[in-house]
Amino acid sequence: MATSNFSLPRNNHLRTAHISRRPPPSVAASFQDFKIGKNPASKRAVKLAESISHMLNLQIEKTIQKSIETSNSNVSSFKEKHDTPTTSPKENISSKWREIHGSGDWDGILDPLHPWLRREIVKYGEFAQATYDAFDFDSYSEFCGSCRYNRSRLFEKLGLTTSGYAVTKYIYAMSQIDLPQWLEKSRLVDSWSSDSNWIGFVAVSDDAESERIGRRDIVVSWRGTVAPAEWYDNMQSDLEPIGQGDSKVERGFLSIYASKCDTSRYNTSSASEQVMTEVKRLINHYNKLGQKVSLTITGHSLGGALGLLNAYEAAKNFPALPISVLSFAAPRVGNIAFRDELYQMGVKTLRVTLKQDVVPRMPGIVFNEGLQRFDDITGTLEWVYTHVGVELKVDVRSSPYLKKGLNLIGFHMLETYLHLVDGYHSSNSGFRMDSKRDVALVNKDCDMLVDELRIPPNWYQLANKGLVQNHHGRWVKPERDPEDIPSPTAESHANAINMLLPN
Amino acid sequence: MATSNFSLPRNNHLRTAHISRRPPPSVAASFQDFKIGKNPASKRAVKLAESISHMLNLQIEKTIQKSIETSNSNVSSFKEKHDTPTTSPKENISSKWREIHGSGDWDGILDPLHPWLRREIVKYGEFAQATYDAFDFDSYSEFCGSCRYNRSRLFEKLGLTTSGYAVTKYIYAMSQIDLPQWLEKSRLVDSWSSDSNWIGFVAVSDDAESERIGRRDIVVSWRGTVAPAEWYDNMQSDLEPIGQGDSKVERGFLSIYASKCDTSRYNTSSASEQVMTEVKRLINHYNKLGQKVSLTITGHSLGGALGLLNAYEAAKNFPALPISVLSFAAPRVGNIAFRDELYQMGVKTLRVTLKQDVVPRMPGIVFNEGLQRFDDITGTLEWVYTHVGVELKVDVRSSPYLKKGLNLIGFHMLETYLHLVDGYHSSNSGFRMDSKRDVALVNKDCDMLVDELRIPPNWYQLANKGLVQNHHGRWVKPERDPEDIPSPTAESHANAINMLLPN
Repeated sequence: MATSNFSLPRNNHLRTAHISRRPPPSVAASFQDFKIGKNPASKRAVKLAESISHMLNLQIEKTIQKSIETSNSNVSSFKEKHDTPTTSPKENISSKWREIHGSGDWDGILDPLHPWLRREIVKYGEFAQATYDAFDFDSYSEFCGSCRYNRSRLFEKLGLTTSGYAVTKYIYAMSQIDLPQWLEKSRLVDSWSSDSNWIGFVAVSDDAESERIGRRDIVVSWRGTVAPAEWYDNMQSDLEPIGQGDSKVERGFLSIYASKCDTSRYNTSSASEQVMTEVKRLINHYNKLGQKVSLTITGHSLGGALGLLNAYEAAKNFPALPISVLSFAAPRVGNIAFRDELYQMGVKTLRVTLKQDVVPRMPGIVFNEGLQRFDDITGTLEWVYTHVGVELKVDVRSSPYLKKGLNLIGFHMLETYLHLVDGYHSSNSGFRMDSKRDVALVNKDCDMLVDELRIPPNWYQLANKGLVQNHHGRWVKPERDPEDIPSPTAESHANAINMLLPN
Repeated sequence: MATSNFSLPRNNHLRTAHISRRPPPSVAASFQDFKIGKNPASKRAVKLAESISHMLNLQIEKTIQKSIETSNSNVSSFKEKHDTPTTSPKENISSKWREIHGSGDWDGILDPLHPWLRREIVKYGEFAQATYDAFDFDSYSEFCGSCRYNRSRLFEKLGLTTSGYAVTKYIYAMSQIDLPQWLEKSRLVDSWSSDSNWIGFVAVSDDAESERIGRRDIVVSWRGTVAPAEWYDNMQSDLEPIGQGDSKVERGFLSIYASKCDTSRYNTSSASEQVMTEVKRLINHYNKLGQKVSLTITGHSLGGALGLLNAYEAAKNFPALPISVLSFAAPRVGNIAFRDELYQMGVKTLRVTLKQDVVPRMPGIVFNEGLQRFDDITGTLEWVYTHVGVELKVDVRSSPYLKKGLNLIGFHMLETYLHLVDGYHSSNSGFRMDSKRDVALVNKDCDMLVDELRIPPNWYQLANKGLVQNHHGRWVKPERDPEDIPSPTAESHANAINMLLPN
């Protein structure tokens, strides 16, 4: 066990530098074609994608069609893996928790990746994944855009009861500027909300987990976008000031984070207000008990961007609180002053990126199908966005389980990231073949696993899309369990009486 | 009850005439675009489709996007329907069974449609639908192309136990000429079969049902293709002789019906031989018992075409046997001599068509995506194909439950046909609002129901595509139940000892 790899220099040196590369507009405009599938344009799209991948040095292999044999020796052990546990025994990491959360800017524990850090990254990543797995994407559901389960059942429903955390609060967001590709909306008139989406949750570690990790940990998990095709419209075209200084952040992200409306059911307060109120409540509660408290913010894609805004605000409000951000596939959010201010306030950010994923690489890229005038937007875009924090970069080529052909959606999926982190040892070594996480999870919502594994693509789905047969044999959509129906009053009431605190 | 509508003239007059309309090649070549969805070409495809629909007088309305309200008064009763039975009480129709099966060429019982005939059409249509519902389409399954259940469990698994029939034999088919778009094939090397597909079944009525319908009824149900996009490649480019006279049929259909191969596991005998052997066995069995026997052949799309070949062969072999064909959305199969020979042999064919479905309307149309040179094929096509039998034409506009916008797949789906037959009263009256069949079934594999009904499109799907979590929490594909694994030896053995005969 390589705890000897821990070293603790306190320098603020950042080890990643990024050169913005902008694709020629004529090529980039065709990104909309990539929404994959067997459509007539797909061959053309693949060709374009290949040339882009070449330009950007993404090192994506061409797709080769073949029939499936279990010839790959790395893969042939896959079936033997079926009868092994999916997690490692939990170790007490309390002595090192500050380093794991970036007190030394992860110097010396990223490459090779310390096993304790790896497991914590996966742990938080699964909180981020939970915001996708429980999200109601069904536009024929009156609850489209909400969480399918109430917060006390969320972890149970997703198999996360052993995480050692309990959800204390759901967060909802809306946007006052028009970001139609962001909001998942019911097609029904009488829906639970016409303007808000469930955007994440706050959770807190229980006693046993707090003991193991050395402090009471508050987690905020932000939901992102699932696929580049759903990516933000013209969200990156404008910078807005944040705070008192020169810091500026992208207008669209800020709008989702800070919008509210008196006539809204779920956003009479903004996501920002909701999350800050809850974090404050939890800090006060545990401070009164004399406990050490930390704040860990996680999110994938858009969720990573919202997480940075959340960290900025929390650092302003709670200067003494250890705050770290663990983001996956996050785009750039703000300008250099924003980044510097985060550093000055001591916010520690570990940014997990995937070499072949274009989202964290290209500022301003717009995958939106509806967008007609890509050139106009990139043309006016100010190239001032900068990344924040330390980067952990994984590579799709490292895993023998993954297809290497171009797959813009698969390369961006959080489950692909978690698989690669779980198999990551160091930048110059191969995939950890004794990694334990279930490989099948990768294909939940994409087609990334090699055919030899025989895991169908996009397999995460409900039986008959939730329809069930009634006693007459008719197929009907059952009512949602009343306790899983989002209710703003029930939620604020619960908070008022301090329900759901694990202590 | 309108049994008074029965009239029994014995004329052989056929009441339908068809004028072949060939779309201009430049337009028809774009049919491949219609595989719908959100692909970039879809707007263009919809425009082309609209102009074709105009040319062909299909009377398809333009799609109008709107949010969903239950404003349609016809539809608002949908929820009330939830608590009603899906079937009518069964009546004894033994006195009229010959008319129902076309002895009078359905004269006087088609318009208005006699309720007994309507229910029998739906009954047989559900046997045809069963061949889709139980088919393993999963290309990642080693059993892709087979039936998911063995024949003794098929009806139980599909909720057809009350049909009064029992399956006695499965039929498998292969094709010696290259019809790649026809065969559903596993991507795995070690699959159950590399050349054969499950193509249908033989079933026979039990004692109670035989009593009700006036004779022992042997059913052959042929599986077709699900969507126009899977439609036959250059199957219609050649006519082959059948029988001793001038009769000719399309070469591709005949190849599927009659191909066999010594090295094949499931087609050492052809579909033709399998089905004829079984029908002969059943006829002998029930003749020995002194029972009246009929043969009813059903199928949708390609299945309807195979059914006609089957009827032709059966009529040659069993001249005294009452044989009827009930086809849905079937294309033209053979030349005029083929049709006339069928008539002379007394085969009765009721052909259900849907006004907006292009498959039965246009001979030789090729929906195949892979096809590049549509013009060449239609150019050389001999326009000699003719329809057989009496037509019952339903109209998508008659049902308030259905979307009216262009939907080539939805218009061709058997469930759409069954819904419209169930609601059909006569050519000049509206939809039977007291029809009992479950409307939700229409959307199983397409998007045809109006949004107000809130039935998601394409809802017929397995939970997590059949993956289940093992005791470690890993997602794995369970082995197929051994008794549901197709086994040629078990099947022939079962037949040898006369198993599964309901009498």
